[in-house]
Amino acid sequence: MKLHNYFRSSASFRVRIALNLKGLDYEYIPVHIARGEHKTGPFAAISPDMLVPLLEDDGERFTQSMAIIEYLDEIQPEPPLLPHDPVGRARVRALSESIACEIHPLNNLRVLKYLVRELKLDDDAKNGWYRHWVREGMLAFERQLALHPASTYCFGDAPTMADCCLVPQVFNGQRFDCDFSGLPRTMAAFEACMQLDAFQRAQPSRCPDAEA
Amino acid sequence: MKLHNYFRSSASFRVRIALNLKGLDYEYIPVHIARGEHKTGPFAAISPDMLVPLLEDDGERFTQSMAIIEYLDEIQPEPPLLPHDPVGRARVRALSESIACEIHPLNNLRVLKYLVRELKLDDDAKNGWYRHWVREGMLAFERQLALHPASTYCFGDAPTMADCCLVPQVFNGQRFDCDFSGLPRTMAAFEACMQLDAFQRAQPSRCPDAEA
Repeated sequence: MKLHNYFRSSASFRVRIALNLKGLDYEYIPVHIARGEHKTGPFAAISPDMLVPLLEDDGERFTQSMAIIEYLDEIQPEPPLLPHDPVGRARVRALSESIACEIHPLNNLRVLKYLVRELKLDDDAKNGWYRHWVREGMLAFERQLALHPASTYCFGDAPTMADCCLVPQVFNGQRFDCDFSGLPRTMAAFEACMQLDAFQRAQPSRCPDAEA
Repeated sequence: MKLHNYFRSSASFRVRIALNLKGLDYEYIPVHIARGEHKTGPFAAISPDMLVPLLEDDGERFTQSMAIIEYLDEIQPEPPLLPHDPVGRARVRALSESIACEIHPLNNLRVLKYLVRELKLDDDAKNGWYRHWVREGMLAFERQLALHPASTYCFGDAPTMADCCLVPQVFNGQRFDCDFSGLPRTMAAFEACMQLDAFQRAQPSRCPDAEA
């Protein structure tokens, strides 16, 4: 497998965690998003949406982090990243989408660039935007976790796709000094994940293309 | 089943289509998002993320439209809304997420409200934002569809979850006069969907809470 990704991309980070949890080896191919490498050169030629991550496996190319994680879970079922029952699966997917559809899309690099370049926002307004959506989204996430308080991770006693989404979002939010107070279940799940080697090894600072 | 939803919500529209395609009856419970009913009153009390759609089934509550559609596909497998092979499933999920994670989150009502109330954007700037993300996202969607040009719908010869996402996004974009030119595969899939009763009946103007 080859993973085209960027050390600082949350969506890439999700897939790196999933690959590590599955014990799947992969070739790390860096795409420097901040320098625009996703829109030019060899990556743009193979990527229809010009977004990272992109996974190459068995002659096929896969895009969109959650679709990739579901694919990995189907071709390599152990350890499972989704529960086996439809209700549990729906819970984990909803938690994942609470981050991947409600928080992260508002705060990725191209959106922040639009705020600055097109809307002429200053740093305070841009950071206020960022923190607003992280805070609102995390409060909603916490309310969902609070419905099932016995879990160690986001859902149950083993990491799932929801944890693959949560951890990068916390990392990203911490870079922007977001407020993670008053989120006891969320931060307990985050801390539990960070005890695991699969999450540690996937973090941005451990990537080959990491920058200070 | 009970579906808490709003006629104009794209994410609600996705689930209405899926329920219709599956032939599942449901009670329509309107939540007037524009009046803030999702944040107060009975809906807020049962909805941890205070978002529509919310599906009640068999004593459980389900949130997030794609998680709900996957749940429906698991409990009622026919007709399938995802292919049976992992590669095909990944393609349909990626197409769905190209809309649900890359376009729609930037353009929903709470985001537009933030642009106007917090960032003090005028109508032109707000509409420019809206159209920019729809256009960029739809061009990326078209490039993905172009990889598999023989399909009638977004993927293959029967509607899938990707079509459940595409049609509401086109409806939404048309309300804001977005540019859908030069998207032959995308618009052919849209037109094919709109030939089907399941899509017709789900559209905003046919909802009990529809407004002009």
